[in-house]
Formats: sequence, structure tokens, C-alpha cells
Amino acid sequence: MDHSLKFTRAGLIKMTIFFFFFICSHIPSSSFAAVQDFCVADYTAPSGPAGYSCKRPETVTVNDFVYSGLGVSGNTSNLFRVGDIPAYADQVPGLNGLGISMARVDIAPGGVVPLHIHRGATEVFLVVQGTLVAGFISSDRNTVYITTIKSGDIMVFPQGLLHFQVNIGATRVVGFASYSSQSPGLQILDYALFQGNFPTRLIARTTFLDILEIRKLKFIFGGTN
Amino acid sequence: MDHSLKFTRAGLIKMTIFFFFFICSHIPSSSFAAVQDFCVADYTAPSGPAGYSCKRPETVTVNDFVYSGLGVSGNTSNLFRVGDIPAYADQVPGLNGLGISMARVDIAPGGVVPLHIHRGATEVFLVVQGTLVAGFISSDRNTVYITTIKSGDIMVFPQGLLHFQVNIGATRVVGFASYSSQSPGLQILDYALFQGNFPTRLIARTTFLDILEIRKLKFIFGGTN
Amino acid sequence: MDHSLKFTRAGLIKMTIFFFFFICSHIPSSSFAAVQDFCVADYTAPSGPAGYSCKRPETVTVNDFVYSGLGVSGNTSNLFRVGDIPAYADQVPGLNGLGISMARVDIAPGGVVPLHIHRGATEVFLVVQGTLVAGFISSDRNTVYITTIKSGDIMVFPQGLLHFQVNIGATRVVGFASYSSQSPGLQILDYALFQGNFPTRLIARTTFLDILEIRKLKFIFGGTN
Amino acid sequence: MDHSLKFTRAGLIKMTIFFFFFICSHIPSSSFAAVQDFCVADYTAPSGPAGYSCKRPETVTVNDFVYSGLGVSGNTSNLFRVGDIPAYADQVPGLNGLGISMARVDIAPGGVVPLHIHRGATEVFLVVQGTLVAGFISSDRNTVYITTIKSGDIMVFPQGLLHFQVNIGATRVVGFASYSSQSPGLQILDYALFQGNFPTRLIARTTFLDILEIRKLKFIFGGTN
Amino acid sequence: MDHSLKFTRAGLIKMTIFFFFFICSHIPSSSFAAVQDFCVADYTAPSGPAGYSCKRPETVTVNDFVYSGLGVSGNTSNLFRVGDIPAYADQVPGLNGLGISMARVDIAPGGVVPLHIHRGATEVFLVVQGTLVAGFISSDRNTVYITTIKSGDIMVFPQGLLHFQVNIGATRVVGFASYSSQSPGLQILDYALFQGNFPTRLIARTTFLDILEIRKLKFIFGGTN
Amino acid sequence: MDHSLKFTRAGLIKMTIFFFFFICSHIPSSSFAAVQDFCVADYTAPSGPAGYSCKRPETVTVNDFVYSGLGVSGNTSNLFRVGDIPAYADQVPGLNGLGISMARVDIAPGGVVPLHIHRGATEVFLVVQGTLVAGFISSDRNTVYITTIKSGDIMVFPQGLLHFQVNIGATRVVGFASYSSQSPGLQILDYALFQGNFPTRLIARTTFLDILEIRKLKFIFGGTN
Repeated sequence: MDHSLKFTRAGLIKMTIFFFFFICSHIPSSSFAAVQDFCVADYTAPSGPAGYSCKRPETVTVNDFVYSGLGVSGNTSNLFRVGDIPAYADQVPGLNGLGISMARVDIAPGGVVPLHIHRGATEVFLVVQGTLVAGFISSDRNTVYITTIKSGDIMVFPQGLLHFQVNIGATRVVGFASYSSQSPGLQILDYALFQGNFPTRLIARTTFLDILEIRKLKFIFGGTN
Repeated sequence: MDHSLKFTRAGLIKMTIFFFFFICSHIPSSSFAAVQDFCVADYTAPSGPAGYSCKRPETVTVNDFVYSGLGVSGNTSNLFRVGDIPAYADQVPGLNGLGISMARVDIAPGGVVPLHIHRGATEVFLVVQGTLVAGFISSDRNTVYITTIKSGDIMVFPQGLLHFQVNIGATRVVGFASYSSQSPGLQILDYALFQGNFPTRLIARTTFLDILEIRKLKFIFGGTN
Repeated sequence: MDHSLKFTRAGLIKMTIFFFFFICSHIPSSSFAAVQDFCVADYTAPSGPAGYSCKRPETVTVNDFVYSGLGVSGNTSNLFRVGDIPAYADQVPGLNGLGISMARVDIAPGGVVPLHIHRGATEVFLVVQGTLVAGFISSDRNTVYITTIKSGDIMVFPQGLLHFQVNIGATRVVGFASYSSQSPGLQILDYALFQGNFPTRLIARTTFLDILEIRKLKFIFGGTN
Repeated sequence: MDHSLKFTRAGLIKMTIFFFFFICSHIPSSSFAAVQDFCVADYTAPSGPAGYSCKRPETVTVNDFVYSGLGVSGNTSNLFRVGDIPAYADQVPGLNGLGISMARVDIAPGGVVPLHIHRGATEVFLVVQGTLVAGFISSDRNTVYITTIKSGDIMVFPQGLLHFQVNIGATRVVGFASYSSQSPGLQILDYALFQGNFPTRLIARTTFLDILEIRKLKFIFGGTN
Repeated sequence: MDHSLKFTRAGLIKMTIFFFFFICSHIPSSSFAAVQDFCVADYTAPSGPAGYSCKRPETVTVNDFVYSGLGVSGNTSNLFRVGDIPAYADQVPGLNGLGISMARVDIAPGGVVPLHIHRGATEVFLVVQGTLVAGFISSDRNTVYITTIKSGDIMVFPQGLLHFQVNIGATRVVGFASYSSQSPGLQILDYALFQGNFPTRLIARTTFLDILEIRKLKFIFGGTN
Repeated sequence: MDHSLKFTRAGLIKMTIFFFFFICSHIPSSSFAAVQDFCVADYTAPSGPAGYSCKRPETVTVNDFVYSGLGVSGNTSNLFRVGDIPAYADQVPGLNGLGISMARVDIAPGGVVPLHIHRGATEVFLVVQGTLVAGFISSDRNTVYITTIKSGDIMVFPQGLLHFQVNIGATRVVGFASYSSQSPGLQILDYALFQGNFPTRLIARTTFLDILEIRKLKFIFGGTN
């Protein structure tokens, strides 16, 4: 212990010598080149297949990497009783080019995240409140992988497979989805079929659904044609 | 001919000189290392996320890269009146690891390739016979991009979006789909919902389809639960 | 059957109630965010390593995804008696960023697709008419994988290997090549050596071809230097 | 309404006819090929750069995609007062090959996730309880991006940059980290320097830290040499 | 010479025959489409996650692909006695989009490349002069892989792991680092901690380094806060 | 100065207290999970499209990451007067899965690296001795990008384009090629055409080379058929 004390003293002397040496020498910061470490989205410049153009680094701040939008409940006053708040590269400029994003999902009692697909991403769903039944459909023998998950559980929904979440409990479900893409996409089956301009006859022919059924659901979801 | 003989003679002399030079030198083939240029699937060894294990190169033949299965019409004696013959890495070992594959699609008059998704691939569909209506649904405002395509046309179906093809002509449609994956996946909506073990009540809750409609379609497609 | 009829009636009543409930509730379309599903090429904006910039989604139409250029025969009135019509992202804006493209290849009797390479893509060649000899050269022991393919066959040419196709039949060959890239590149050996400005002496030194042979072929293909 | 009722009746009759037609027709399920949609980890077979080998699909169950390990608090009785529970492909076989994973991070009051790096992944950190100061260091002018985040916030830590989290509140912080890799790696600076066999003299030379300081920290962290 | 003249004459006759044949045929150069083979950086246009925008091909010259900056010694008159000259896509426009880059590293006797990380690249270090001790730290049991390398040796530093190089000889070390990225990034531990604006107290809390030690090193490296 | 000495003493006391606290607390090393940071090639297990299987981490040593084979001159006693020594994942197990590799190239005076292509990699060529003419051929208007490079220069050869290097000086050229792939492939035009089993008639038809020229070169390079 005594020795290490002396050592420290010696070290301080060495330090002092160092400093003097330094004043005469070049500044060390010039010996390595700086490179930009990220490509924060510039929403006003052209975007391409890999994402948005990069902001000039001197305009980047820590706020480009932080997002508070997931801290409030999504509005569940709708047919599905579900609120979905995305935190994609569209909302969080710091996610641009990084291959990951998130969303908050609130499901009121009796609510449901209807069958949907993320075109370009695997989803990992984390339950932080409530209990739900979730599942995805594999095209291999059309097996449905269904289970009940509760607070603290995560469930993996492999890329591009139809999946759903249903609140089966008496309390609101709060979950956070993570995606293996900065822009995972979201195709909700009901919206794709019944909310847009997909002609009813073509829906019938390509799904075998009854015309009346389609009309009913188009009425509900606001689809035309 | 006579002239070209003289030509040959001159060439042979030059060649002979060359040879003597050569006898004293090393064999050139040893100056560069050989490397394997492909990873032909060995279906008997473990497979991983990137594909099948590679066959030993000395067992690879040109037949690993050729497939004749798309030369015959697919059987269209089924509900959809469609025949689908895949040429994926599962069928063509030479496609392993190369990020591309194909399929032949036959659609009898009145037939339809029902709404489906390829989880991991964009599709380019080439019509070589017949006329069809094809479309895909974008999740951006649920717009449906529909058009009529005929022999010689190609149509792009971006990765992970619901799409369909309907034979609207009097003759059989023959088309070839190319995919940006060696194993593009195929999730047919009707099969996913109505052919497997997806419980009827859950389908109803996650699609808003009527229970009766679901039961009818499960009856048709053979689904359980 | 009787019961299910009653069920249907009940369902209709339920539907009616539903509608009223709906008029007072929020519009469901606001519960999920829309995201762009593709990046259709804007040929007027900057392009980058991943492809062209994206068009604004509201200007995208189904025509961006459809191409009729492969429906007509390529002009084979040339030295190789071959017509090559590309359908890359340069021609089909909807292919931008999607990692796949196509081309139509017509080979007149006696014609040939000369030795060439696609820098960035595997090719799958589909024969829809005619018979040809095709092959590629592996750098592993310089093995040539050659075979005869006919209408209905596909053949895989792994990325970056020299390959060729020769029409050995009496009829025109019509084939469609699919590539694992939106911009596969095409380097034809004869053009690379004999059509550009590659100096004759350097060609001789780097290929061991005879100077006279090079001059002859440069004369044929129009090369300089 | 009356009409739609008749329609439904008509539909039922149509259905009945359908069924009879069906009994005589082929089973529709044979018209499309099944493909495997995921590559669940087989921990007993060889692994490669892309991940573990795939389990045989018939042995896959929904449990391969669900993990409850993040539902319990990590043990924070340690120097950093932090508990880290990974949910990588090593723990959740269904994540294999999918490019995403998670971890639960508990930080007791006064605790800290020390400076560390994930070699192969961007991290998005979601706070579900507590308040913390977090930051990462950019190599561009060595700027530190620091901020305070609280429950409901997410923060992005771009791939491969040193970062940290410090509990500055009076309550336990509970956070969930999502990573853009199935196996993100974790290099904790203190462990890298002071817990392993990195020779003290080399640490001093390559970090300019004082020998005594290094010895002290090696004593704390258990390093040798 | 005389002979080769005759040789040429013969060739010319054959060529002439060829030409007549040719005059009747079309120019072959029109049978294949040209495609751009590279995306040389345009430093004045927007950049994105995949790199810089592409220069117009007609403005590209061979100089875009050549760089002489690594031919001169880096200035080693600094604290680390090391000179680092990057040849990234920022310096060599032809590297844009190609996933590789280089740097020259000079280390004076007694000098050291301090502990650092390349966020997005594996490094292969080639020694062309001198002898050094180099190593990297694996997070797996915090093992340090250290060895002595000399002229002619290469050493692999896997992506995202802390590593260092120390000149242990009496002569200058000259090495060339190759990176698996066009923009590998470089985070030097000392600079990250002690040259920027990372608050001293936070450094202490997230590294367990002594406040005094941090102050000393901030004094040396010029850090603030 | 005096103060800082006292500070150090105080620090030592603080340290001592720390240690006691520590003896009673848990070992910190258990708070974070270890993960494997690399996939060193196991040449005895199956390989796949992404590379070799991984060795068990406990059998990995620093020698897996170091290679001395590039320290000796390649044998240039051959037709091309060139020696090529690869350091790919086949030779350096630590390169497996990391997307980068190298080779040493020696070119004796008058020697040449003949026209060749790397199927899957961009090459950056570093000259450490000598002067050479190097170039590559772009398929865009068949432009040849040629220049003279000397010791210290690097030159970029974009992926999949024909390129060459010629020693134009009086001294041996020594260069090191870096590749953006762990297994870049190497297809030498002369070998592909004239060393393997590519039938002479097919070469003639697919290259327009004269039969006699082909025979001569097959004789030189040892080709059959």
C-alpha cells in the first residue's frame, strides 16, 4: 500500500513531465480522421430504397434519437378497440438506416389487433400489461401457432406471416412491438380488403368470400367499389 | 484453304518456339488458387438461415442447375383451377444461396390465383399465354393497384403485399413467376384462414368475418377447429 | 340448415345494431399508421448505391409496375443474331430497390449469346421456345457445366461466372432471364475486349491472344486503340 | 334487407351445390407447395455465420417463439446494481435468423449500465419504469449525446457506439432493449479491460490509464495479468 | 518480320471477306443494353444510409478509383506516435457503395494505436514493416487474443471488438488496414472519454475510473465538462 | 499538487472501503450474459451459403486470426510470371463470416496478372513495391479505365468487372489485394477458356476467336476438348 502511494507520486511527476512535453508537441486529435457514425433522416431531401437522406451532422441533436410518443396510450375508441402508435424512421429520425423500429400497442378489453402482416420485418411483441391470445399462421401445412401471453412475455412473429393479438382479459393490454426494420410496413387484412378501392367482385373471386359478406364489411370499414 | 494452311504453318512455328520456352518453365495452372463458386444444396445435411449446406464440389453436376419441371402444365383440376409448380432451392439444388427462384403458374379459364403473400420475396410475373387481371394492395391508403396484363407483359408485386391473378380470358393462362429469394414462401389467405387449425371464433374476432361465412369456407377448404 | 338460416337473420340484426353503433364511434382507419410499401424510381432525382430515389407515393400508378417491352421480339439482325431486351429498374420504375429484374432474349437460328458475365446477379434462364446449348464456367478446376436445354427448362447461372447460350436448333429461341438484382449488369467478353478503347497491346499481354486476332476482332466489333 | 335475406338463402343453396361439386373434385390443398417459413434454432447441430441450424419443422411448437424470462426482475445485487436478462437467439430459438432480439434491463437506484458496445446491432431502449440519464458517444468530434429519459420514452443507440444508462431517480428503472440482431453482442468496457486476462502494462499503454488505477479496477472486477 | 507481314496479308484477306458479310448486317453494338457498373460518390449531392449519391457516369474517370494518399508516412508527432491516413469512401469516391476501404497506419517506435473500435467493419491489418503486439478483446469471458506480428503477417480484428496495436520494435511500423465497409468508423476509447464533452462525473459513474484519473486524461486529451 | 496528493490518499481509503463492501456483495461478472463474438471456421463441419460452421469457442486461439503466408514471395516461375497467395476464409479460419479477405500478388518484371474477375467481391489493390499498369473494363460503353500505379497507391476494381495488372517496370511488383468477401472467387479468362474442358468449337462460337488461336492457347494452358 505504501509502495503504491509512492508509485502514485512518481506517476504525478511523470504526468507533469508529460504536460510540458505536450505543450511543445502536436495536438493529438489530428492523428485520426473523424467519420460520421449515423445517418439521421432529413425528411426534406430525397429518400431511396435504403431510407431517407442524411441530415448534416452539425444539425443532429440527441432529440433525433429520442421519442416520447410511446409514453401515452393510443386511442382505442374505434372498431378494433386498439391504439397503435408507430415509432418508425418516419417518426424517429435517428432510426434511419438502422434496421430497427418500434410501436406501442394498446388493446382495450375485448379489443383485437386484427390479422395483419409486416411486409419487411419480424416482430417481437413485449407485453407490459394485461393478458392476450396471440398467434401467427405458418404456410407450412397452414399451422396456426397460438398461445396465451401475459405481462413480461415476449412473442416472436416471423417476417411476413399473418398474425393477430386479442385481449382476453378484463384490463387494457399494453404492449410494445419491436421490428427488424426501420420501416416495417403494416398490412391489415380488413383494411386491405374492405377499406380501400378493391372491387367487391374481385375480392369475391380471389378470396371466395360471399359478396354479401364483403359488402357488409366494406360498409363497416368504408371501402368503395 | 491452301492459304490458311500456310497460315497454320507459320503459326505452328511460332507455337513450337513457345513450347520450348515452356518446357523450361513451370506449369501455369499452379499460380492461382481455385475457390468454390457456388453452394449447391445438400438436402441431407443441416440447413440454416442462409439455406442448405453445400454439396462437395466434386459431386456437383450440371443437372444441379437445370430443372425441367416447369415444362409441363400444372394440374388445374382444383377449386381455384390453378396449377403452381415451384422451382425453389427445395427443387433446384443449384439455386441454394443465390437469392432467386421461379415458379410456373397455370390458370384455367375462370381460374384464379387467390389473394396471397410471399413472405420474403418480390415477385415478377411474366405472362406467356392468356390474359389476366392482376393486382396488389398497398397498405398506403389501402390502394389497390390493378390492371389487365397479357402475353409478353411482366408485372411487379413488391415484397410482402397481398396480390392476386385472375384469368379473365377464354384460354388458359400460362405465366412464370420469378422471386427475389431462393425460398420465397407462399401464404394463401384462404388456406391460412380456412384450411388449417385456426379456430373459427378467433378468425371471426381477428377478421370480422361472419361465423357462418368462416364455417362455409372451412368446409370448402378442409379446415378444422 | 334451418338453424343457420336463423343465425343469418340474427347476424343481420346484429349488423344493423353495429352500424348505428358505428355512426357514433370514431372512424377505424385512424387507428393504424400508413407507411409506404415501395420505392418506385424517380429517374430525375439523385440515385445512390441502393438505387434511384423514390417517387412521391401519390404519383405512383400501376403502370410503374407493368412493362410490355418483353412482348415483342428483340431485333436479331446483328452479328450474334441475338436480341436482348432488358427490364431492369432502368426500364421498370417499380423494380427499384427490390433486388430482381428480367430480360427477354431472342436467338435466331445459328445465333449465340456470347460469353458474358453479370457483375452483380445470378441468372435463371427460362426457355419458352427452341433448343439451345448453354453453359457456364466454374473457376474451380475451370470446369465447364454445359447442357442442352429446351422449351420449359430453366437453367441457373451462378453470380459472376462466364456463361453463354447457343441456338442449336432450326427455330428461333425465345427465353426470359431473371436476375437476382434490379440492375444485374452485363459484360460481354467480345465487347469488353474488342468494342471499346482497350489498347491492343494490353489485350495481347493480358490475354495471350495474338495481336492479329485482336485486330481482326476489333475491326469486327468496332474497337479503337 | 328483405332482398339480402333472399340472397343469403340463395347463397346457401349455391353453397350446397358447391359441396356436391366438391366431393367429386380434387382436394384444393394440393395446388400449392408448402415451404418452411422460419428456421427455429437447433442448438445441437452446427451453427454458422448466419446462425444456428434449423430444427425439423414438425418439432417446432409455439413455445419456440415465446419467452417468459423477461417477466422477472434481473438480480441487481452487484457492483453496477444492474440486472441484464437477454432474450437472444441463444435463449429464444424462434429468433434464429430473424435479425432481432431483446433484453430486460433492471437498474436499482444509484445503479448504472456501464459504458458498453453491441458489436453488431443498434439498440432501441424503452423505459417502462423510472428515470435515467443515457447517452452515446459519436466518434465525429467525440460528441456525447446525453439526455434524460423517463417511462414511456425510447432512445436509439446506433450500432457500435459506446453508450451507457444511469438511474438518476429514487426508484428502480425497468427498461427493455431491442436489438437489430439476433445475437447483438455485448462488450462492457470495464469487463473488457479489468475482468479478463488483458495484461496491465498493455492496458496502460493502449489507454493511458495509470497502472495503479488499472490494478485497482482489476482487483474490483477480478481481472488477471 | 517479313513472315509476319505475309501472315498479316493472309489475315487481311480473310478479314475482307468478313467485311462484306458485315456490310449487309447490322452493327452488333446495338444488341445489348449498357448499364452503369458503379456508383462513384458525388460529394455535392445528398447521401443516404447506403452511401453517397452517384456521379453521372460521363464524369467518372480512372482517378476516381485511384488514391495516392497512402504512399506517404502519416505524421507521428503526437501523443500516440501514430499516423492514420484513411482511404474511405470519403477520400476515394470510387469506393462508394462497394463495402470495402483501407487506411495506412504508421507507428513510431514506442508508439501505439490505442484501444479502439470500428463500429461497422472487420479489420484485416497487414504489416509491411516492423514488429508489433496486437490484440482484441472478445466479450466471451473477456478473453484477450494477443500476439506478436511482424512484416508480412496479417491479423483479423472481428467487427465491433476493442483492439489495439503497439510498436514493440526499434523501427517504425508501417501497416495497412483493410475494412469490410466503405466507411468503417473509428471510435478511439481515449478520445471518446477524454477528448469530447463527456461530463467527468458521468464517466466516473459509467466506468468506475477515478475522478482524478479522468481529469488528468481530459487535461491530456483536451476534453471539456 | 499537494491537494491532489491528498485526494489520491483519500481515494485509496475509498478503495479500501470499497473492497470490504465488495467481499460481502455478489460477484459482478454474473450480471451480463456472454455471447460469442465471431464464427471461426470449422473446416470439418458442413459449410453453407454464409460460410463454414463455427468452431467451438473454447478451441479458438489467436492463431485462428493470424496468417503469415503473405510474408513470402509467391512463386513467379510460370507463364504469367505472377505469384498469387490467397488469404481467404479457406486459409484464415478467423475470416469466416466477416466479409473480407486478402491476397498477396507478386509480379516479376514483364509479368502480368491476366484478365480476370472476382465473382463476388470488389478488390482494392495496394502496391508496396514496383510500378504497374492496371485497368478494368466497364460495361458502360465498354470503357477501359487504365492508369499507372506505383508503390503506395491503391486502386479500386469494382465487383465483377474484368481487370488486369501488368508490371511495366524493371523490378518485381509486390501488391496486396483486399476483397469485400471472405471468399472472393477468381475467374481468370485464359484459364476459363483454355485450361479446362470447354469445347473448342463452343469457344469459337461464343467468342468469335479463331479456332486455330483457341487450339494454340489450349495447347499452352493445357485445356482439353
